[in-house]
Amino acid sequence: MADGPSRGLADVVAASTALSDIDGRAGLLFYRGYNINDLAGRASFEEIAFLLQRGSAPDQGELTDYRAELAAGRRLGALAIDDLAGIAHSQRPMEALRSLVSLGSAADPDAASNAPAANLRKAARLTAQQPVLIAAYHAARNGRELVAADPSLGIAANFLLQLTGARPDERAAEIFDTCLVLHADHTMNASTFAARVCAATLADMHSAVVAALGTLSGPLHGGANEQVMLGLETIRQAGGDPVEAVTKQVSNRLAQGEKIMGFGHRVYKTEDPRATHLRRMSAELAAAAGDDTYYQMSRRMEEVVLAEKGLYPNVDFFAATVYHYLGIPTDLFTPVFSASRMAGWTAHVIEQHADNRLIRPDSEYIGERGLSWVPLDAR
Amino acid sequence: MADGPSRGLADVVAASTALSDIDGRAGLLFYRGYNINDLAGRASFEEIAFLLQRGSAPDQGELTDYRAELAAGRRLGALAIDDLAGIAHSQRPMEALRSLVSLGSAADPDAASNAPAANLRKAARLTAQQPVLIAAYHAARNGRELVAADPSLGIAANFLLQLTGARPDERAAEIFDTCLVLHADHTMNASTFAARVCAATLADMHSAVVAALGTLSGPLHGGANEQVMLGLETIRQAGGDPVEAVTKQVSNRLAQGEKIMGFGHRVYKTEDPRATHLRRMSAELAAAAGDDTYYQMSRRMEEVVLAEKGLYPNVDFFAATVYHYLGIPTDLFTPVFSASRMAGWTAHVIEQHADNRLIRPDSEYIGERGLSWVPLDAR
Repeated sequence: MADGPSRGLADVVAASTALSDIDGRAGLLFYRGYNINDLAGRASFEEIAFLLQRGSAPDQGELTDYRAELAAGRRLGALAIDDLAGIAHSQRPMEALRSLVSLGSAADPDAASNAPAANLRKAARLTAQQPVLIAAYHAARNGRELVAADPSLGIAANFLLQLTGARPDERAAEIFDTCLVLHADHTMNASTFAARVCAATLADMHSAVVAALGTLSGPLHGGANEQVMLGLETIRQAGGDPVEAVTKQVSNRLAQGEKIMGFGHRVYKTEDPRATHLRRMSAELAAAAGDDTYYQMSRRMEEVVLAEKGLYPNVDFFAATVYHYLGIPTDLFTPVFSASRMAGWTAHVIEQHADNRLIRPDSEYIGERGLSWVPLDAR
Repeated sequence: MADGPSRGLADVVAASTALSDIDGRAGLLFYRGYNINDLAGRASFEEIAFLLQRGSAPDQGELTDYRAELAAGRRLGALAIDDLAGIAHSQRPMEALRSLVSLGSAADPDAASNAPAANLRKAARLTAQQPVLIAAYHAARNGRELVAADPSLGIAANFLLQLTGARPDERAAEIFDTCLVLHADHTMNASTFAARVCAATLADMHSAVVAALGTLSGPLHGGANEQVMLGLETIRQAGGDPVEAVTKQVSNRLAQGEKIMGFGHRVYKTEDPRATHLRRMSAELAAAAGDDTYYQMSRRMEEVVLAEKGLYPNVDFFAATVYHYLGIPTDLFTPVFSASRMAGWTAHVIEQHADNRLIRPDSEYIGERGLSWVPLDAR
């Protein structure tokens, strides 16, 4: 046994990665050496998925081929299609995605292989399918047919088309594309770590990604963006001036020692750089929508939390209003997060399999010792 | 960032637990303070599941109630039943269980709740259902109806009945029951750790258990028992004296630096106590079967590996022949492991939720730095 427990593994280095890096003091995030501030609005999600999964930025020919692979990979498997209606009517969104991705391996010809080429093909298929699964789930629970994919559209625009049934305007698609870029990877976050723990037993990519989906579903991880929006909606619905109501409600909750979702991060000691981009996009979408109430409420909330607790908004905070203004239903915010993070999860599985060691920590025993088993009839 | 990477988290204490403890130098395993040598053959799997999930050994009334809860909890949900045939014909056993357990949350009235009472009820249902899912999968892939459960039988005997279609003899059921006891928990093994990483985001028990199932499927973890049996079968089928063939083949493989599945453990520095019990049961079943070839081959294999590498058999090694003699198909060995470990996984989720902290380690960045993004048309 090693010395002392590291609860939550805070500051314990659990893996080496060339995928992403965080400078928590400076508030910087890098994907394979590129500053996220250099990528946001300038690189497409497809370029970033390629960068993460394959190691370098694609040239024009590589990107054309990768886009074609993604478009072909969008097709869902028979099990997932057959079970979609039953699942959509009886499982919550992240539960449903966990089931649908697990079923999806049945239709993947590479499901059982961890070979590098097989992993690359699966990474592309999983990345292509995740947004389609979300739109298909949403259509099925509403008793609608899924709108056909448009092979000329990228992942972001096609998702908004399939989700809402309407072709998105160009700027909305660009903004959503940037959201996907911003959420694609983030070092050893809990879901990525779960994927690596799973992959490190040499389990296959679908198993690792299913583990990650379940992990992302928790309210302390991916579930936070949904909680942020529900919080804003609750305050607004209570009536009165919603911005003033934010001050009062947040101050009260902080005074009672409650946690405000969407603030603070174990790694960043200053503003999360993703929050900066999301705040700007939230402002733009609010202005375009002609109702900036949720944006103004969010601004007030960050002022109060910073003043009272010294905490900065994290990626979940302004993602909530951005997704809201884009017309995404609140209970699909975490699924949308998963559609982006799929690029990172699959890249981490590739990286883990390429240089593997079983991840098997120790534990500290805190229970009773030296008990003698008394047979049932003498108990 | 903390100092230096701890690859594989070897010797890093990642969690505190009162569920199990290992003394790796002495070769001892404890469940809640009871020595496994005191439990093997003297406690039933139901008593151990209760002990792990609820904190103390049940008295007679508690055990009667728990057995009734397990018997009632065996019923599979509609989604799992509807999809069984499709899954059984297109997913490998552990893939199928991952899907079936994920679908199973749809029928669990407590699926979305992490409340202590809800977690206890889910733990009982998941423990009761796992062996039924395995038997149902096996029946479906063979185009058979699942044999009805016998409410008068415990989990071990009922599983053998539903799997094989024949009522097991009493001693076989006892031995299998002891196998379930021996595999029920084992500190921070990879699948349990994956379940805790997942549960620590406050994800629900089904998500955590699905993550664990995927993790157990890897050949470096649960998959090892199947690999042991396949290795023995391959040597025997090659003809000649199978025991002598073991010496030759294992020596050759060790000389080439290959790993022999079923030997060595990161935590035990001497014999795994579970292996001691499994060896004894393997010998007994081999004698009863009137053909001890696989047992003798196993004995030779452990002699060779100990002499040449100083490695002791782990839990997977003699579990392989025990399961084989019990008539369990080789590709269901890992699923059977999961039916036992479900008791431990669910208990760890209960423990994690009761005193939670997000598990979010650091990573060491090993990639390039300071790259500038060149837009696609200039690349």
